[in-house]
Amino acid sequence: MFEAKKFVENSMKDIQKIVGKSRVISACSGGVDSTVTTVLVHKAVGDKLVAVFIDDGLRREGEPEFVVKTLKSLGIKTKFVDAKAEFFAVFKGKTDAEEKRKAFRDKFYKTLGKAAREEQIEFIAQGTIKADVIETVGGIKSQHNVLEQIGINPEIYGYKILEPLRELFKPDVRKVARELGLPKEISERMPFPGPALSLRVLGEVTPEKIALVRKATEIVEEETEKLGTFQNFAVLHNDKATGIKKGKRVYGNIVTVRIVDSQDAVTAKARQVPYEVLMRISERITGEIPSVVRCLYDITDKPPSTIEFE
Amino acid sequence: MFEAKKFVENSMKDIQKIVGKSRVISACSGGVDSTVTTVLVHKAVGDKLVAVFIDDGLRREGEPEFVVKTLKSLGIKTKFVDAKAEFFAVFKGKTDAEEKRKAFRDKFYKTLGKAAREEQIEFIAQGTIKADVIETVGGIKSQHNVLEQIGINPEIYGYKILEPLRELFKPDVRKVARELGLPKEISERMPFPGPALSLRVLGEVTPEKIALVRKATEIVEEETEKLGTFQNFAVLHNDKATGIKKGKRVYGNIVTVRIVDSQDAVTAKARQVPYEVLMRISERITGEIPSVVRCLYDITDKPPSTIEFE
Repeated sequence: MFEAKKFVENSMKDIQKIVGKSRVISACSGGVDSTVTTVLVHKAVGDKLVAVFIDDGLRREGEPEFVVKTLKSLGIKTKFVDAKAEFFAVFKGKTDAEEKRKAFRDKFYKTLGKAAREEQIEFIAQGTIKADVIETVGGIKSQHNVLEQIGINPEIYGYKILEPLRELFKPDVRKVARELGLPKEISERMPFPGPALSLRVLGEVTPEKIALVRKATEIVEEETEKLGTFQNFAVLHNDKATGIKKGKRVYGNIVTVRIVDSQDAVTAKARQVPYEVLMRISERITGEIPSVVRCLYDITDKPPSTIEFE
Repeated sequence: MFEAKKFVENSMKDIQKIVGKSRVISACSGGVDSTVTTVLVHKAVGDKLVAVFIDDGLRREGEPEFVVKTLKSLGIKTKFVDAKAEFFAVFKGKTDAEEKRKAFRDKFYKTLGKAAREEQIEFIAQGTIKADVIETVGGIKSQHNVLEQIGINPEIYGYKILEPLRELFKPDVRKVARELGLPKEISERMPFPGPALSLRVLGEVTPEKIALVRKATEIVEEETEKLGTFQNFAVLHNDKATGIKKGKRVYGNIVTVRIVDSQDAVTAKARQVPYEVLMRISERITGEIPSVVRCLYDITDKPPSTIEFE
C-alpha cells in the first residue's frame, strides 16, 4: 500500500541530499506530474528552485496563464519563457509523428538548457513517472522526458536530471498531490502529453492548425467535464473530406474526439459516451469551427490503439 | 402519390418510342438504380438490350459474381468487361477527391463507349435518379452518371443517354423494383456510389488499399445487417496513427465506420448504433486487418457532412 505522507518525507530527504548546495530548475507544464515534482522540490530546497513555464504555443486555451498563476500562488519563483515562434519553426515541413516528437524534445531541452544556464542551475527536476519509463524502454512511445533510458546523456543540454516520481504510477502521483494540499484542478487534472497539441495535429504542425485543435479541445472538455473520464480530447486530421456549408459543397477538415477510461495510461478503454453528448460535440465543433465538416469518435481500446494518435 | 405500376407502363412506351430500332447498352453495377433501369429497358426492348458489367476492381467482396448471376437469371444478355488494371492505372498519383472522381468518370465512359461500339449500340441506359441531378446541378457533388447537366455532351463518348428514372427519388425506385418483381437483395439494396470503393480510400487509390477497405466493408456489413440502416460502410484514411500490435509500437492505418439513416440521401442522420455493435466492429477490423490500429465512428449528420467522404 502506497503511503503518500511517507513518500513525501523520504523524497524531501533524498532531494536535499542529491541537490546539496546546487540550484534547481523545474519545467512545469501544469500537469499533475510536473506540478507535484515542482512543489515537492520547492518544499525540499525552497528558493534554490526556479520553476520554468515554457510557452511553446502548443498549450490549451488559457493554460499558460493558469499555470503561472498557480505556481506564483504557491510562493514558487517562476520564470516564463515565450518560445512560441521557435517551436513552430522546428515543426516546419515535418509530417512524420516520430520526427515531430524528436523535434519537440530537442527544442524543449535546448530551451530549458538555455534557461538553466541563465539561472546558473545544475539540476533539472522533471515529472517522469513509471509509465513513461516503461513505455519508452518498451518501444511503445518515446516519451519526451525520458532521456537517459533511451541513451541520451542529459548533460549535453547542460544539466543533470532529478526525477522524484519515476517509481510512481499515476494514481499514486495524485495521492501525493492531495497530500501536498494542491488544488483539485491540479491533483485531479487530466493527463496531457508533453508535446501538447502538436500530437493532436496529424501531419505538419502550424499555428493555424494548433488554433483549430485548441478550439475543438475546449469544446470537448466543456461538454465532457461531468463524465469523469481519464482523458478527453480532439485531434485534427491531415486528411480532408467533403461536406456542405451554407448549401455549397466544400472540402473541409476532419476532427476526431477521443474519450478514454484508464488507471495508468498503460491500457485504456474507449468510453461509451451517451450519444446526446457526442452529437452535441459534433454539432458544436462543425458549427463553431467553419472549416470542419466532419466529426469522428474513436472507438478503439489501448491496445491495439494508443491513447494519443502520434 | 407515386404509382409504380403506371410508371412502368408509361416508361415502357417512352423507351420503345425513343429507342425505335436501335440497340441499347445498360451499364449495370448491381445497385437498385441501375438494375431497375436495366430490367425496365429489357422489358421494353427485349434482346435489343445488352447489359454490361464493368469490373473496375473497386467493387465489394463477391459483387461482380452476384451482379452477373442476377442479370443472367433474369434472362438479360450480359457482357462482362474486366477493366481492373485500366482503372487502377488512372488513379495512379491522384490524391485530390474531385480529380479522382473525374478520372473514374472519364475511364468509366470510355470503357462503356468501347463496349457500345463493339456491340454497335446507339443508346446507353443509366440509372440516374433525381437526387443525382439535384446534387450535381447544385454543386454538392459531381455525380458520375450526370453528364449533360454538367455540360458534357455524352456523344463525345459515342452514344446517346437514356435515363428512365431521372424524375424519381430513391423510395420510388424501390417501389418500381418491387413492382418489377426483383429479388429483395436488389429492391432493398443499400445505395453504393458509382466510383465504388475508390471514394472510400482517402488519398491515392491502389489495389492494396482497395483490398483493405473491401475487407473492412465486409465486416461492417456483416455486423450491421440487422440494423436496417440506409447506408453502412468503412473508409480507409490516408493519415496514419500509432498503435500497439503484438506488444510493439507501430504506425498503422485508421478506418472510419459510417452508418446513416436517410430517406433519399439528400439529408442523413448518423445512426446511434449500440456500442456493443461498434466495439465488435472495432475489434474485428483491428483484429482481422493487421495494419489497422484505430477505428473511428462518424458522428456527423448531412449537412454539414456528406454521406461519403469524397
